[in-house]
Amino acid sequence: MLLCDIGNTYLHFYQEGKVWKELPRRLKAGMEVQEVYYISVNPPSARRLLEVYPHAIDLAPHMVLDTAYKGLGVDRMAACKGIEDGVVVDAGSAITVDVMQNQVHLGGFIMPGIASFSSMLKSISPALEKELNLSVELSALPQNTRDALSYGAIKAIVMMIQNSCKNKRLFFTGGDGKYLARFFENAIHDNSIVFKGMLKTLEEMKEGKR
Amino acid sequence: MLLCDIGNTYLHFYQEGKVWKELPRRLKAGMEVQEVYYISVNPPSARRLLEVYPHAIDLAPHMVLDTAYKGLGVDRMAACKGIEDGVVVDAGSAITVDVMQNQVHLGGFIMPGIASFSSMLKSISPALEKELNLSVELSALPQNTRDALSYGAIKAIVMMIQNSCKNKRLFFTGGDGKYLARFFENAIHDNSIVFKGMLKTLEEMKEGKR
Repeated sequence: MLLCDIGNTYLHFYQEGKVWKELPRRLKAGMEVQEVYYISVNPPSARRLLEVYPHAIDLAPHMVLDTAYKGLGVDRMAACKGIEDGVVVDAGSAITVDVMQNQVHLGGFIMPGIASFSSMLKSISPALEKELNLSVELSALPQNTRDALSYGAIKAIVMMIQNSCKNKRLFFTGGDGKYLARFFENAIHDNSIVFKGMLKTLEEMKEGKR
Repeated sequence: MLLCDIGNTYLHFYQEGKVWKELPRRLKAGMEVQEVYYISVNPPSARRLLEVYPHAIDLAPHMVLDTAYKGLGVDRMAACKGIEDGVVVDAGSAITVDVMQNQVHLGGFIMPGIASFSSMLKSISPALEKELNLSVELSALPQNTRDALSYGAIKAIVMMIQNSCKNKRLFFTGGDGKYLARFFENAIHDNSIVFKGMLKTLEEMKEGKR
């Protein structure tokens, strides 16, 4: 069985505990796979997956989450189902932060991803076109432009996550998940959280719940 | 005497306590003005000003601020000189936050402006193309995409300013200065802070300090 989480940039795959990613244009038919399940926030990439695996099944219509949130993306739903309790941060092109309590989704928010901060600043002024310094000191006021931009992006993201997690367990996934996790004690970094939510949905389908 | 603060988007003018702004392409020769002083972070717009006021004098070489910060923009320098003590937030296309203590600059940071958050999120995914909700509730977890985006931008900006100001006085200027000031008790909104710093520089020049 092959699982695929189709994001804004990459297609993320999961098979027997292994996780990898591909750009849509680099996607090639892999081994013969009997079952392929996917979720997608990117229709062109989903069409690309279906060219390669025409029998792939979209899990979105089967995914149910207890929430008052209107229009929650299917990837965030899967991440929430994947943790059941705590705060899940999916740090990719965008950073989503969602709070779960006893399998109930309490709400969440969206920030630009780290790379987006860079490109956003660049578009304001060429003077702000700097590679972010990922090692910037967050406890002292910056003393140059590159650090000022890095601090303004990274500290903002870190403080927003801190503010949302209080005493809850904190889970990180996505391309910048590992980097962000190191700002927090006891944070869990796990690139299979979304897939765990997809597997849970499959179990629920088999149990006839959905 | 006419003062001009040339930003990334607008030219901001000051004359006899009045403040107004113009887009560079809409700039027309005004009344006869004997003295014109300017600062600029935008060379094409500065050239445009000099077409209209060929005798305008750049204050940048005369502006001195006690700081360890390398490469501080001349507009931030002027804002710092304009407050002397406290935290000054200039909220335009970019948001700059600078901390002053007894006329000494302790450092500062840069975040994308509110409009930049919007356009950045739009560029990540069409699903994130929403006008920000400037009245979003910052004390409860968002329950829809538009609020999730607004909360992720506005709360991040507000928390970063809060974190930097501690017990210091807080000054706001720039296009979104008035909006942001309302999140803080006793914040001062003043669209002439940068001009006050320019006037201070002129005084110093006359006193022969520079």
